[in-house]
Amino acid sequence: MSEFIKYHPAPDELGYTLGGRGPVASVRPGDVLQVYTEDCFGGLVQSSKDLPSQVCELPFVNPVTGPFHVEGARPGDTLALHFVSLVPARSYGVSATFPHFGALTGSHQTATLHPALEERVWVYDIDIDRGVVRYRATASDHTVELPLDPMHGTVGVAPGGFEARSSITCDAHGGNLDTPEIRAGVTLYFGVNVDGALFALGDGHARQGEGEVCGVAVETAMNTTMIVDLIPGVYTAWPRIETDTHIASIGVTRPLEDAYRIAHVDMTEWIGRLTGLEQLDAYQLLSQAGTSPAGNVVDPNYTMLAKVAKQWLPGRAEAYDGIHDRLRAAAAAMTF
Amino acid sequence: MSEFIKYHPAPDELGYTLGGRGPVASVRPGDVLQVYTEDCFGGLVQSSKDLPSQVCELPFVNPVTGPFHVEGARPGDTLALHFVSLVPARSYGVSATFPHFGALTGSHQTATLHPALEERVWVYDIDIDRGVVRYRATASDHTVELPLDPMHGTVGVAPGGFEARSSITCDAHGGNLDTPEIRAGVTLYFGVNVDGALFALGDGHARQGEGEVCGVAVETAMNTTMIVDLIPGVYTAWPRIETDTHIASIGVTRPLEDAYRIAHVDMTEWIGRLTGLEQLDAYQLLSQAGTSPAGNVVDPNYTMLAKVAKQWLPGRAEAYDGIHDRLRAAAAAMTF
Amino acid sequence: MSEFIKYHPAPDELGYTLGGRGPVASVRPGDVLQVYTEDCFGGLVQSSKDLPSQVCELPFVNPVTGPFHVEGARPGDTLALHFVSLVPARSYGVSATFPHFGALTGSHQTATLHPALEERVWVYDIDIDRGVVRYRATASDHTVELPLDPMHGTVGVAPGGFEARSSITCDAHGGNLDTPEIRAGVTLYFGVNVDGALFALGDGHARQGEGEVCGVAVETAMNTTMIVDLIPGVYTAWPRIETDTHIASIGVTRPLEDAYRIAHVDMTEWIGRLTGLEQLDAYQLLSQAGTSPAGNVVDPNYTMLAKVAKQWLPGRAEAYDGIHDRLRAAAAAMTF
Amino acid sequence: MSEFIKYHPAPDELGYTLGGRGPVASVRPGDVLQVYTEDCFGGLVQSSKDLPSQVCELPFVNPVTGPFHVEGARPGDTLALHFVSLVPARSYGVSATFPHFGALTGSHQTATLHPALEERVWVYDIDIDRGVVRYRATASDHTVELPLDPMHGTVGVAPGGFEARSSITCDAHGGNLDTPEIRAGVTLYFGVNVDGALFALGDGHARQGEGEVCGVAVETAMNTTMIVDLIPGVYTAWPRIETDTHIASIGVTRPLEDAYRIAHVDMTEWIGRLTGLEQLDAYQLLSQAGTSPAGNVVDPNYTMLAKVAKQWLPGRAEAYDGIHDRLRAAAAAMTF
Repeated sequence: MSEFIKYHPAPDELGYTLGGRGPVASVRPGDVLQVYTEDCFGGLVQSSKDLPSQVCELPFVNPVTGPFHVEGARPGDTLALHFVSLVPARSYGVSATFPHFGALTGSHQTATLHPALEERVWVYDIDIDRGVVRYRATASDHTVELPLDPMHGTVGVAPGGFEARSSITCDAHGGNLDTPEIRAGVTLYFGVNVDGALFALGDGHARQGEGEVCGVAVETAMNTTMIVDLIPGVYTAWPRIETDTHIASIGVTRPLEDAYRIAHVDMTEWIGRLTGLEQLDAYQLLSQAGTSPAGNVVDPNYTMLAKVAKQWLPGRAEAYDGIHDRLRAAAAAMTF
Repeated sequence: MSEFIKYHPAPDELGYTLGGRGPVASVRPGDVLQVYTEDCFGGLVQSSKDLPSQVCELPFVNPVTGPFHVEGARPGDTLALHFVSLVPARSYGVSATFPHFGALTGSHQTATLHPALEERVWVYDIDIDRGVVRYRATASDHTVELPLDPMHGTVGVAPGGFEARSSITCDAHGGNLDTPEIRAGVTLYFGVNVDGALFALGDGHARQGEGEVCGVAVETAMNTTMIVDLIPGVYTAWPRIETDTHIASIGVTRPLEDAYRIAHVDMTEWIGRLTGLEQLDAYQLLSQAGTSPAGNVVDPNYTMLAKVAKQWLPGRAEAYDGIHDRLRAAAAAMTF
Repeated sequence: MSEFIKYHPAPDELGYTLGGRGPVASVRPGDVLQVYTEDCFGGLVQSSKDLPSQVCELPFVNPVTGPFHVEGARPGDTLALHFVSLVPARSYGVSATFPHFGALTGSHQTATLHPALEERVWVYDIDIDRGVVRYRATASDHTVELPLDPMHGTVGVAPGGFEARSSITCDAHGGNLDTPEIRAGVTLYFGVNVDGALFALGDGHARQGEGEVCGVAVETAMNTTMIVDLIPGVYTAWPRIETDTHIASIGVTRPLEDAYRIAHVDMTEWIGRLTGLEQLDAYQLLSQAGTSPAGNVVDPNYTMLAKVAKQWLPGRAEAYDGIHDRLRAAAAAMTF
Repeated sequence: MSEFIKYHPAPDELGYTLGGRGPVASVRPGDVLQVYTEDCFGGLVQSSKDLPSQVCELPFVNPVTGPFHVEGARPGDTLALHFVSLVPARSYGVSATFPHFGALTGSHQTATLHPALEERVWVYDIDIDRGVVRYRATASDHTVELPLDPMHGTVGVAPGGFEARSSITCDAHGGNLDTPEIRAGVTLYFGVNVDGALFALGDGHARQGEGEVCGVAVETAMNTTMIVDLIPGVYTAWPRIETDTHIASIGVTRPLEDAYRIAHVDMTEWIGRLTGLEQLDAYQLLSQAGTSPAGNVVDPNYTMLAKVAKQWLPGRAEAYDGIHDRLRAAAAAMTF
């Protein structure tokens, strides 16, 4: 019997790492989990006057909800998280330039002698009914509506090797992946590194461009419903995504071409396993059929995807024994 | 009076550089040019027995048709090339693994001690009527049809500074950009560096994945029709693309994050000029509305795009005074 | 009264992270600490038959001795570690090629489709009296003596932000820096992130080339004597080194040019503070007077140094109020 | 009979590319060539008031003297250039910050939204007799003498493939390598790509730090004497350097780790050929014995060296059949 578990963290229950802390709750494979996640600024940026560098205090940024202990999860398994729905929990979202953060500025890692670009906040209206967010320029009257496309920037499991990693960064365990591909309807796969998997999530975005070029998306609190499941005995080396139509591998590192390489080596192997194609045949097919959207080009590690439509894969490819379709069906049958 | 000019190069008229040689023909702004381009292997790879490293001789690879002299083009102008149609000139295309070339192998620049991956050729059927190319595995019976999506890997103008650059590489002058976004219906913009612009093109692909991961697309000869036009007195620093729905800037360099940076700085400026948005406002809008498809992650320089839908730009954005719409209308009116 | 503290860890006292575990001992500023460190393979590779991937078990590699709690150390202070002597604790050292690790092979992060290079072990004789290590080829009779130049690959403090980082990697907190510049006679500076600083060290090398190109130096257990000191109220953002003749900043990240940038921005600031030179004047002087040895180009993060001879700095530059000279004098006066 | 050839270019004889133009003179293997080279600013920056961006006009920067045709040189040979002496031709040198150029600023390739750092000129006194250059701060009275260490930033042959490359960049053919290792007493090796080799040189530096961090060394005109020689039938894929004590390979590309990889793959092969060591044995020896100084981290392509002392190579290693020693002896016997 799967259960419905609802969890709204108190402020002092928020986490700032993947790994390194005990679970806030325990779930079983098949359970439905509904959580509230705070935005990357801890909800402290509410108007254009709230400059992030002034109202936020390091390291208390990018809080995550969790971690959740998955009963029976063991190192070497794969955790499947199926996102049923992501609903912004506020009627507004915020973005900002943050000093020495972003792809088009000297930064912590791409260090230069330039003073920081101006720190500034943009406030977006979120209209869930109409499915739009409204951008408003700060230095002129320009405004435009963009599609609402809710996603989570941060989701992952505890890393192995006794590590605890900041929720600001990402790596093979997930974390701050910051790709717009993590939205409702997808199933995420992570290799389990510690008993119970200890997954957590946060950093909701009302929408985000590819690469998250200024470093900050349309940040908002989120009410998110997911089904948690487990694939025993199969490890997933890098984060993977499945939708009704596509599969995608996420490469995570610097420089960006190495993230691209990781994603495409992983996808070559995945295609081979799904279809029976020999390695170079899979490499060839991916070369002609794949797309490669950027996740983020701003965080301590970058993300880049290798993505391919299932219809271009010979045969009937069923990833992880068809778990996505089953979870999709379960989600459709939910009466909550 | 615009003219229709048809040019089919003799083998000894093919070029192997952008810059460094005189024009094969002269055209005027507004002229319609129809050219034949040879494939990147000079047509010498025709079956799985024709290994590129054996049948091709360096530097005689990736031939280009041209260069064409554009009357009146001066350094500081912008050349507009509107692609009316790209039709494969053969019923087959070829791809290959080439020794020490590609994103997932040690290579000339990412040098390692590994011996080369196996060199192998894939032959695709091209069915223009049905709009598909057929992939066939080499080590098994797997086969699948992919959409035909003809494009040019290589197109550019002569670089400045007395340079002549190999057609295998790309830079601010264009060249071997290898992005699938260069297809029929788009207008390309290049800054003119020398009198007459001296543009050339080649490297037709029946289709290509993003990043061109194995280094070789579905290579084929192409019959391509374009309208040539000129925007006097306006320079374009990096190659740009316009479609009916999107504008895109192409960043060209290594590492890949720098290609991303170039594209997004250029797009920030372009948005600012098109809409009147102040710099940081344009940066912010791009951060939420942009996509970033990879071009190639295999050539001596990588390419990555900053792409944005026109509908997300406030106001009625008309790039280069609306030239794309005019060329599109002219193409539609063509009776050839 | 400074004390002399000797610490030899039992096998189950070894650590595998910086951060995330409690101290093994407490020291006071001024104390002399003598420790034994195990080699990166935990001492398990003892002959050419002991292939690391077979005798070692992840994550139990690159053990560190510590962490040590420094009384009075608070976040925002700087820890000074003065290395008095490093003496190999074995008469041999080992190196190896490790599958998919090293600069000239496809690797975890620079992922390719190549099978791993052959795994092989080299055993070096260490002759402390004569100050040499003997290299012996494995596939022929070639042999040569190289200078013994003992160093620590791994040394650092606990990171902040509730993080625990694997001892295999490095970052602003130090860790697996793998630069041959960390030898006897130098003073190392690290910013303190947590109460007590919680520093640890290990990964002794009898010698190492710049970049550590195959990924493994001449690995050996080490008996190391150091003086521990504290500089209150001054934070050090990136690891720094001082010798009798030089100062150096260590940049840590990927790609390698970003490590170079970090080191040189930090050194520009350091020169400015030491000499009173305005920023661009310091940048200029560094441009002509600096050297930039590579640390490692193989670990999850790379290291590169900005190094400058004190004699090229105008005036009498005294880093951190002359602490290096005082520690050097104290070391010279030691009667242990 | 070898000849002594002296060549002082008229201003309109200066070149701005490697490749793409005919020779200014012809020499024979064994000839001694003495040339004058102009500085990278064409001699136009003579005081702190001469801002490079104002007094120089693109592409007329970094002029080279040459190219020189070497009789008998054929593609597949190796050109050896032995630098006998480099003597600054002026009593001063200049350096500068140049807008959007340098390692610690947003730049053409690492594009950001930052306005340029301040453009500023530093004038150095060059005292040949005392062997020093004098640095003077611009914003204070600080001054210091640094060792005079004359070198050429730019030296190379014509590239193959019908290319002409700007003298501002570098690649496998050499060009603007900008490593301080190219000084008097060294022999340089370049693979010949076109008949006559067509080598050229320029960009004299009174001294330069590793990485050339601000992008500009102590630039000065130079009177340089070299012996030109030819090694028939042996190609050199990447530029190499030999001194009395060391051999070095120069890797050229981006990102910097790829330049490191190229240099170290080339050096692994070179060691193997010189000593007979099997590949992995050579890789191992290089890992412990090599140094890796940065050349430049500022030009369109970066340079990084793999350098090893001859004394650490087993046996008596004679590169290119001992040509360096013979040229060294010939230089010592010169009576000019």
